[in-house]
Amino acid sequence: MTKYTELKNGAIFGPGIPNPFSQFFIGDTFLNTLTQSPDEKINIGTVDFAPGARNNWHIHHHGYQILLVTAGEGWYQEAGQPARSLQAGDVVITKDGVKHWHGAKVDSWFEHIAITAGSPEWLEPVADEVYNALEA
Amino acid sequence: MTKYTELKNGAIFGPGIPNPFSQFFIGDTFLNTLTQSPDEKINIGTVDFAPGARNNWHIHHHGYQILLVTAGEGWYQEAGQPARSLQAGDVVITKDGVKHWHGAKVDSWFEHIAITAGSPEWLEPVADEVYNALEA
Repeated sequence: MTKYTELKNGAIFGPGIPNPFSQFFIGDTFLNTLTQSPDEKINIGTVDFAPGARNNWHIHHHGYQILLVTAGEGWYQEAGQPARSLQAGDVVITKDGVKHWHGAKVDSWFEHIAITAGSPEWLEPVADEVYNALEA
Repeated sequence: MTKYTELKNGAIFGPGIPNPFSQFFIGDTFLNTLTQSPDEKINIGTVDFAPGARNNWHIHHHGYQILLVTAGEGWYQEAGQPARSLQAGDVVITKDGVKHWHGAKVDSWFEHIAITAGSPEWLEPVADEVYNALEA
């Protein structure tokens, strides 16, 4: 379990601000927008998730997303696949059109850098029965 | 000053391998290739620099580079500009065609993630008199 104090002390890029897209998330999450590529095609920022927090199922259209996990422990799941357990140092690639979600474990804060191209389509929340069935 | 043991313990993505492009660097450096974007336009990896290590002056053509500083202390300098002191959490954008170099401070290890588009042109080394004149 990673406590908030530990994550905050270990957060390289700072905790950011309360997530302005919180309607597409369950639980408390924080965004720190770091930069955009000069061609404006790639956005880079960190997302911090409180224990139990996760985003809704979503799809990146006309692009992709790369996650670089920087702190804590979390989950990544593509529709129809088992959830993948994540910890600092892990790298995740989501290809164009793939329905998926990501977020913290139930007892740990979680932080990743997100490198994003294209535009997201937000879908339904990850049901509690799906999330709570995941084994730490 | 950041010692190697501290950087290694703090290195989120691991230290990688001895830099296969060492002919374009001064001092010991290590690369950890993390991933490539699905469209193969962006490469993402970490670079670790031993104290005093730095790359040659170089240019990114038909692209750009974004540095996310993850550990230690270092320098970034564009030709004709003063050097910028860097530490964990700093973000640097190098635009297409800009001659520049980056590396560790003389007494500190340094690590950054590099997000790179296009192809580099490697130029002359950063002269000792230029590097040694930088003030920590």
